[in-house]
Amino acid sequence: MIVIMRSGAKAEEVEHVVELVRSFGLQDHVIHGTDRTVVAAIGDKRSVDLSAIETAPGVDRLVPILAPYKVASREVKPEPSIVPIGKGATVGDRKIAMIAGPCSVESRNQLFEIAAAVKEAGAVGLRGGAFKPRTNPYQFQGLGQEGLELLAEAGKEHGLAVVTEVMSIDQVELVSRYADVLQIGTRNMHNFNLLLACGQSQRTVLLKRGWSATLNEFLLAAEYVISAGNKNVILCERGIRTHETYVRNTLPLAIIPAVKRESHLPILIDPSQGTGHAYMVPSMCRASIAAGADGLLIEVHHDPEHALTDGAQSITPEAFHKTVLEMRQIASAIDRDV
Amino acid sequence: MIVIMRSGAKAEEVEHVVELVRSFGLQDHVIHGTDRTVVAAIGDKRSVDLSAIETAPGVDRLVPILAPYKVASREVKPEPSIVPIGKGATVGDRKIAMIAGPCSVESRNQLFEIAAAVKEAGAVGLRGGAFKPRTNPYQFQGLGQEGLELLAEAGKEHGLAVVTEVMSIDQVELVSRYADVLQIGTRNMHNFNLLLACGQSQRTVLLKRGWSATLNEFLLAAEYVISAGNKNVILCERGIRTHETYVRNTLPLAIIPAVKRESHLPILIDPSQGTGHAYMVPSMCRASIAAGADGLLIEVHHDPEHALTDGAQSITPEAFHKTVLEMRQIASAIDRDV
Amino acid sequence: MIVIMRSGAKAEEVEHVVELVRSFGLQDHVIHGTDRTVVAAIGDKRSVDLSAIETAPGVDRLVPILAPYKVASREVKPEPSIVPIGKGATVGDRKIAMIAGPCSVESRNQLFEIAAAVKEAGAVGLRGGAFKPRTNPYQFQGLGQEGLELLAEAGKEHGLAVVTEVMSIDQVELVSRYADVLQIGTRNMHNFNLLLACGQSQRTVLLKRGWSATLNEFLLAAEYVISAGNKNVILCERGIRTHETYVRNTLPLAIIPAVKRESHLPILIDPSQGTGHAYMVPSMCRASIAAGADGLLIEVHHDPEHALTDGAQSITPEAFHKTVLEMRQIASAIDRDV
Amino acid sequence: MIVIMRSGAKAEEVEHVVELVRSFGLQDHVIHGTDRTVVAAIGDKRSVDLSAIETAPGVDRLVPILAPYKVASREVKPEPSIVPIGKGATVGDRKIAMIAGPCSVESRNQLFEIAAAVKEAGAVGLRGGAFKPRTNPYQFQGLGQEGLELLAEAGKEHGLAVVTEVMSIDQVELVSRYADVLQIGTRNMHNFNLLLACGQSQRTVLLKRGWSATLNEFLLAAEYVISAGNKNVILCERGIRTHETYVRNTLPLAIIPAVKRESHLPILIDPSQGTGHAYMVPSMCRASIAAGADGLLIEVHHDPEHALTDGAQSITPEAFHKTVLEMRQIASAIDRDV
Repeated sequence: MIVIMRSGAKAEEVEHVVELVRSFGLQDHVIHGTDRTVVAAIGDKRSVDLSAIETAPGVDRLVPILAPYKVASREVKPEPSIVPIGKGATVGDRKIAMIAGPCSVESRNQLFEIAAAVKEAGAVGLRGGAFKPRTNPYQFQGLGQEGLELLAEAGKEHGLAVVTEVMSIDQVELVSRYADVLQIGTRNMHNFNLLLACGQSQRTVLLKRGWSATLNEFLLAAEYVISAGNKNVILCERGIRTHETYVRNTLPLAIIPAVKRESHLPILIDPSQGTGHAYMVPSMCRASIAAGADGLLIEVHHDPEHALTDGAQSITPEAFHKTVLEMRQIASAIDRDV
Repeated sequence: MIVIMRSGAKAEEVEHVVELVRSFGLQDHVIHGTDRTVVAAIGDKRSVDLSAIETAPGVDRLVPILAPYKVASREVKPEPSIVPIGKGATVGDRKIAMIAGPCSVESRNQLFEIAAAVKEAGAVGLRGGAFKPRTNPYQFQGLGQEGLELLAEAGKEHGLAVVTEVMSIDQVELVSRYADVLQIGTRNMHNFNLLLACGQSQRTVLLKRGWSATLNEFLLAAEYVISAGNKNVILCERGIRTHETYVRNTLPLAIIPAVKRESHLPILIDPSQGTGHAYMVPSMCRASIAAGADGLLIEVHHDPEHALTDGAQSITPEAFHKTVLEMRQIASAIDRDV
Repeated sequence: MIVIMRSGAKAEEVEHVVELVRSFGLQDHVIHGTDRTVVAAIGDKRSVDLSAIETAPGVDRLVPILAPYKVASREVKPEPSIVPIGKGATVGDRKIAMIAGPCSVESRNQLFEIAAAVKEAGAVGLRGGAFKPRTNPYQFQGLGQEGLELLAEAGKEHGLAVVTEVMSIDQVELVSRYADVLQIGTRNMHNFNLLLACGQSQRTVLLKRGWSATLNEFLLAAEYVISAGNKNVILCERGIRTHETYVRNTLPLAIIPAVKRESHLPILIDPSQGTGHAYMVPSMCRASIAAGADGLLIEVHHDPEHALTDGAQSITPEAFHKTVLEMRQIASAIDRDV
Repeated sequence: MIVIMRSGAKAEEVEHVVELVRSFGLQDHVIHGTDRTVVAAIGDKRSVDLSAIETAPGVDRLVPILAPYKVASREVKPEPSIVPIGKGATVGDRKIAMIAGPCSVESRNQLFEIAAAVKEAGAVGLRGGAFKPRTNPYQFQGLGQEGLELLAEAGKEHGLAVVTEVMSIDQVELVSRYADVLQIGTRNMHNFNLLLACGQSQRTVLLKRGWSATLNEFLLAAEYVISAGNKNVILCERGIRTHETYVRNTLPLAIIPAVKRESHLPILIDPSQGTGHAYMVPSMCRASIAAGADGLLIEVHHDPEHALTDGAQSITPEAFHKTVLEMRQIASAIDRDV
């Protein structure tokens, strides 16, 4: 960490900072610049909150040097992780993973029809919500356990890895019984107790970025899961909150090269949540592949107008099929497969 | 809800929308404008997700008319709610409530020293974290139950209502045993299962706004708590994520008049989290009172440089005392008390 | 426009709104819903600021129906515009336009070396700043007229259309003498006087989106240029300001399908400004093509470490060349050429 | 500046950075930490863009140490500036300046009626637009020179300093003939040529923050004006673009203590633009004073429903009068006057 003193900071103020640095078990190193003095604090003290040094007299601000995460970092594991998602499929390898399905499991017919269609088009995973986090308490909250049973059955029948959301600690065991991958939703990225509970599970975890989380916070959330014992973590970008109104969320695809640089974990993109409008989804699917995503999480519905949830951002099986064909060609441009 | 058709939408596209509207049990009303046709859908269908109509051919976009929340709304209860917080104190009345204390309970000495000081300065509530949501898994996570016991004891000794965070469903009962008010943190505002669990508790709930939640989502989170049976909800603004870097969060005080217009619930401001820098806190305390806040949640520490958490944004008991004196005079300008 | 009344608005309040609507020359149409009354105001009054109706008693809020822009809209001109950029090249056609070059013109040697390299790699346009908008008044402000002369010469020698920024009205004539395309920078997107001056020029205008402009404001800025007489406008997205810190700007590629839906104007992407980091540029170039961009504006420098401006986001000619090859294959996946 | 190397950077990469630092005329200082090496570059090189060092192999990122502005900084001038605004009034002194008036000058009657009312209530300045920057090219663009004449006359008659916007370089001389203070609008904060032109004027400059400008950029814009020869600069916060929708802009009042800490320049708040809704304005006026603002810029209109511009955010003379009385009492709480 580096402590930048204010211009004109007094010698005793610098001395006080040096003492504080030492009191935290760090080594100090003072540099006198032309205008300002800087105190470098050397040593790894991720476990201590040093930000309070900011309030010491004469201090302008602090600059952290080390990344706050460790086991999620590329520094610790330089080669990319290849994460199994069940049914023989992986994420992070040369083959880009398509995980598709309805926003919510609504009925056996609905789920099986969509599952067959996405399998046919090339998907390796089936997504679908059994427990739905709903902003509005009066709306459809999912089929619960019945939805899980249908997912497991459809996944088995079609050889698709089942990905579904787990909303609270007490659901972890139940969902693990039916699903291949536990999804932690954007609203729960900072739900540290849930992160720890999923870290103790044997299931692969698909972790969605909080809609205003920083990249550091996103990787720290992964760090929670990994440090609790589960190294099979897949990151997923699903759009952030900005001032833009022509989209429900702004999809920042530059996070793909950023994650590749900072972390060994694979990253998926969710272009459905990431835009909120079905007409944008094919374009963002193609862009994600071209940008280097390790896979996609896509909402597909055979009758979007009557979908119980997220119809506005669901594409039809036909649109999905056509887009997969385009993505296949794009993938080959960067020496990958879909 | 209003469905705005695209310019040049065909008659059969309008007809299809009318049929969709009817199929959802709503009454249709078509208006032909100079450039565009608009279909009004009349009726209260908060329980149905109508957004999928957006994907119908010829539709430009949907405009909701009704607020999505109901029991949190001023329409349902025009007079402001006065919410008890324990130890005889309330929030939402003429008297503005000061709730102050350390970010984390660190030790008996620390807590009791700060509790005595804030009581002396005029606080009616004692805040302090026993379970701490930490972005970084390697940092201090709170004293847990021991912290709760200390809080209860300090609150009793000084006649201060105890406000502390509950991070997961399984903590609700435990925390309720020691605290007067259950705080739901910004990272959990969208943790709907936790909202429901707190809604079944007898304790008053202090609900912090998610750092990128909209006002509608904030009030819907309150709606979750209230509709689960607990009408004693206090809102708390703690700053939002923006592009600004001179603050840790941007504190949008205009939410005070907005909440007063839309809801009957009282609203507190947290200027500590809301800025992230101790030097800004007195200024934002004064501004909050002047803007019409029903109270403040303030981090006070007798030795900020050595605080285990949030030292950078904690003010000293002396600064708190001086600020209360200024706030008292400001409150009188708008006919209230501190 | 639609005026949504508050729940419980009185009959005389509705009546007053109806009178206001009529006083603005619009036709009224009142709908009584279950909870609320809505007043539709029919007619095209883009020239009148109706927002003041919001302050009338009993009004909740206004919802505009018509897009505020007209000549930039797809409603008025359904087929996409193909805009000439000089030297026989166009933007908006099947062929995707590569416009590359240094951030600033620094010297004859620098410019000609880069121009030759980007031409060789497949560029049709040469970008380069002669007048530089610098946030910092003490830094390099560009070579001015000398830079323009070098650009014109390099463009002629290599058959590259010259694209350069015009920062103020008095530069419009001068820059038009040397350049094929006048670039209006992100900081000037709302400089309406400059928009009008460029609208009176014969040169094609490349209009960059303001870094917090909405899509409506972006298209309205184009409307200023077109309505002043110049229909040759090219839009350019260069990233927006958000809370993200791993990028200098967040690049929202979903604006590509949004622009294609709302407007007939072509759209370029600037992945250099759009990320701020050279290592992300190839990835975002590929993604932009896959998403449907009509071209790219890319900063290329043969010696980024010593570039006078924007070295951090400039790629080398070698990286540019390699990326063009990838983009060529991606373009073919969506039936276009690079 | 500090260059943070990546973990595991090679010795020759560090050496290369050291050479780059020296080649820019700076002194190097290398610190070897536990995980990473850091190269401090000592010396004041505000005039050189060092960001390209970021692209050197093995570099993680750069951290600037010095503030990029100088003459706007409190380091150079520790005591606060008191800036004259004409008619004997100042901004930055103990007395808080009220500058009020219509958004646009619409007519003689309108302007004089409002001027008389705001003077009566305690204003020292009269605001009003003669040249209006309009996002929509089809709407009222102001009365131009006629508006300036009316402003000058009203200002003289009531002893009010005249504040009005200048939108382009060619208007600077004209507006200077009639106005006491040249306002640079939010859309022009980055219009560096206009900043320089106003810097050469003798008139005080009121500089509004760009709606997504950082604090550094805001102070650098002031630096442009000051370094061109005009030290009479007043800052004005008018709200920023965020994800919030219950306001037109989010008003970040914590910028007041931040500016007071970093700069000697006075700061005004514009609660009309800063919220966009008249009903929020009194609350934000009071909060601004309590937070320490040196003055307010407020839109007042005697008939908001029929205002040609910004009626939705204009308060009536009666509301203004009542709010001034409240602000007077609040000011006394922090030992100031209104």
